[in-house]
Amino acid sequence: MARPGRKGGALPSRPVPSPAVTRLSLYLRQAELMMAQGIEFASSEELGRALGISSAQVRRDLGMFGHHGLRGQGYRCADLARGIRRTIGTDRRWPVALAGFGNLGRALVGYPGFRARGFDIVAVFDVDPAKIGARVDGRLVVEPAARMSERIRALGIQLGIIAVPAVAAQSVAAAMTAGGILNFAPTPLAVPDDVCVISVDLTVELESLVFLVQWHSQRK
Amino acid sequence: MARPGRKGGALPSRPVPSPAVTRLSLYLRQAELMMAQGIEFASSEELGRALGISSAQVRRDLGMFGHHGLRGQGYRCADLARGIRRTIGTDRRWPVALAGFGNLGRALVGYPGFRARGFDIVAVFDVDPAKIGARVDGRLVVEPAARMSERIRALGIQLGIIAVPAVAAQSVAAAMTAGGILNFAPTPLAVPDDVCVISVDLTVELESLVFLVQWHSQRK
Repeated sequence: MARPGRKGGALPSRPVPSPAVTRLSLYLRQAELMMAQGIEFASSEELGRALGISSAQVRRDLGMFGHHGLRGQGYRCADLARGIRRTIGTDRRWPVALAGFGNLGRALVGYPGFRARGFDIVAVFDVDPAKIGARVDGRLVVEPAARMSERIRALGIQLGIIAVPAVAAQSVAAAMTAGGILNFAPTPLAVPDDVCVISVDLTVELESLVFLVQWHSQRK
Repeated sequence: MARPGRKGGALPSRPVPSPAVTRLSLYLRQAELMMAQGIEFASSEELGRALGISSAQVRRDLGMFGHHGLRGQGYRCADLARGIRRTIGTDRRWPVALAGFGNLGRALVGYPGFRARGFDIVAVFDVDPAKIGARVDGRLVVEPAARMSERIRALGIQLGIIAVPAVAAQSVAAAMTAGGILNFAPTPLAVPDDVCVISVDLTVELESLVFLVQWHSQRK
């Protein structure tokens, strides 16, 4: 079994999802892309080349979760995609609660990838009286943050997204009684041991980009 | 030298930043966090434990970029942070152009982490006449997208962020004459060979979270 990311808990709480789990998501996207291109089988070399990962790593990652290719043919893309979805848990739909209906929250509600991947934002919360009651995406209304924990229980929601300012994030996390929290606030969160937190830090992506830009300009 | 992420180019263009480069960003954050806690030295074991990475991997990653600890003491946090910033390229400030002033664009302009890490959004572009001329963050105005490529050149900008709908992303990318593009549009981009693209897919994070939530609930 892969070492999963650390659970939330004591500070420092910048829990890191296992890189192997992140790579599962990338293999899934690549298998789907190949299916869309009419490709039936993909070798570990082809998957690896497309993603910048060694073929040995591809075989190790997929084998660890019980996904094996056929000798001489590789992985059947459709089977691989279905299998990875089952491993990840996205072979079913997940209702999601969103805390914070500012610019980021609005962008997340409209993010087309979530629904396509099985994530449905079914409840949106904010503290701002001017936002409470506002229509969201034509199908929801913003609810008061004070009702969040009760509503999450009533709706059986297991995933929450925190899109509030850093100063409010900890108190929101305490009321977000879901099993998993995706945290966009740039602050560590202390949560009970049975709650998983993944913090998204967009500057990490910009840093990788700067590294690449410098690396390529030095090679010219 | 680590294999860097793939450059943009032909489809499929979901270029993946080298995981080792992403880990550099995580080591940097951990070193800074420890400094803030008054910790002077960190061993590879301590860095690894905090981030869910093996100590051997930590030493390999840092050694590859010339960062070495002191025997029996580990890495001096201040030196490590400074050294990683130099390796990444964030030991100087980077002006950034933003295309798209919708909800996501507004959220990115207000994202506190960017400026703290040396990224300054210095120009914002949109096609919507109702948005052009709008004040951004008290210091900029939204400029017409038609002027983007000329303005990027005039301002010497090397980094661009695409926060426009998927259908518009390709034409925006063509006009974004920067060396590196951070792409939030859920679509692959074809760019010249000398342009680096990193695409951000927020569903990958939610998938990792689902995996963790399931994994922990099965262990109860």
